[in-house]
Amino acid sequence: MNASLSIAVVGGTGPQGRGLAYRFALAGHDVVLGSRDAGRASEKADEINDKIGSPGVVGADNAAAVDKASVVLLAVPWEGHANLVTGLAGGLEGKIVISCVNPLGFDAGGPYGLVLEESAAQETQRLVPTARVVGAFHHVAALSLWKTPDPLHHEDVLVCGDDSEAKSVVQDLAVSVTGKRGIDAGALRLARQLEPLTAVLISMNKRYRTRSGVAITGVDQG
Amino acid sequence: MNASLSIAVVGGTGPQGRGLAYRFALAGHDVVLGSRDAGRASEKADEINDKIGSPGVVGADNAAAVDKASVVLLAVPWEGHANLVTGLAGGLEGKIVISCVNPLGFDAGGPYGLVLEESAAQETQRLVPTARVVGAFHHVAALSLWKTPDPLHHEDVLVCGDDSEAKSVVQDLAVSVTGKRGIDAGALRLARQLEPLTAVLISMNKRYRTRSGVAITGVDQG
Repeated sequence: MNASLSIAVVGGTGPQGRGLAYRFALAGHDVVLGSRDAGRASEKADEINDKIGSPGVVGADNAAAVDKASVVLLAVPWEGHANLVTGLAGGLEGKIVISCVNPLGFDAGGPYGLVLEESAAQETQRLVPTARVVGAFHHVAALSLWKTPDPLHHEDVLVCGDDSEAKSVVQDLAVSVTGKRGIDAGALRLARQLEPLTAVLISMNKRYRTRSGVAITGVDQG
Repeated sequence: MNASLSIAVVGGTGPQGRGLAYRFALAGHDVVLGSRDAGRASEKADEINDKIGSPGVVGADNAAAVDKASVVLLAVPWEGHANLVTGLAGGLEGKIVISCVNPLGFDAGGPYGLVLEESAAQETQRLVPTARVVGAFHHVAALSLWKTPDPLHHEDVLVCGDDSEAKSVVQDLAVSVTGKRGIDAGALRLARQLEPLTAVLISMNKRYRTRSGVAITGVDQG
């Protein structure tokens, strides 16, 4: 397990960011919730604090949140992603940057993965070459994260990255979500496969009126 | 459950085709193994017959195999895929055509999904517009299919397609592999997400020295 980490959640007022922030805080990590609007971030931080019954989570604007933390989770929409990362680049340098960004399109036929040469995670790596970028937490459903404090035992967090040490930290961090280490899914470029898989999960959620998740068989991560 | 189907496995001498042919035959379906080389197809068919202890599987060249069957599984490499499908187009017209083709690249960094505007399944649909194309069986490991006759209970077969009736037939056919219906993963275009996910599984297989598989949580398919 990790020692307690200091984690900024950029886009922390969105459902995925809020849900992960809640789980990280519940596991004892220091969490700063970031948003474009610092006031809104503080409101959402208080929501999490109320839920947990402790005042540990604070809100800030995204740049200030990044400055306060040693690990940054990017939980923002794909639209405007490059601009957002560029704007935060100075603060992201040298840090572990986790991307759970999903570049999806939606139309009358439902959700689908955009045709891209690089994933959101790779884009972040290109824009901030010294960042230690890791892809993870794409597939855990926001509502499942938020609804109860119970670990999502039946799901797996798939973790990809080129910095082994950073990847290992994020694999440990996954314990706060599923109760077990995340699975090392391989190199950062495999984020091109992990990110749009979320379109398939959303599609199944609609068809089966459920919150689907991914589990990997044959890999024992305790 | 399906009544007994007549299934041609194009590329049936490769590990994935052979493994699926074995499971289909074991479940009582009529299977014709196709290969570029009819003699080699007959040899592999006999291997399956020996394993099952009945003479039900026959071998043929790919075109003859397709002609004999009402359902066709394409289990061929991505390289040469368009040419192969074009060559078989006449025989595929109007039939249920299942694609488990994975357009992957491999280099020193391991396996990865090729950057493509359309999946293999979509390519087949474009080349044979009357075919009832369904994507499925991408993720079940060839060795797991072949090694024992036991259903892969812990894994799920994800099925995508735009022809609901054809998709339902293939969901039923998945019972022969996992012991339960395949999951309706959505529209055919989501094959763009399902196919390259195999790169992630291969990557994990290397890292963990295992045969990984995919399971979906939250969807009950009995």
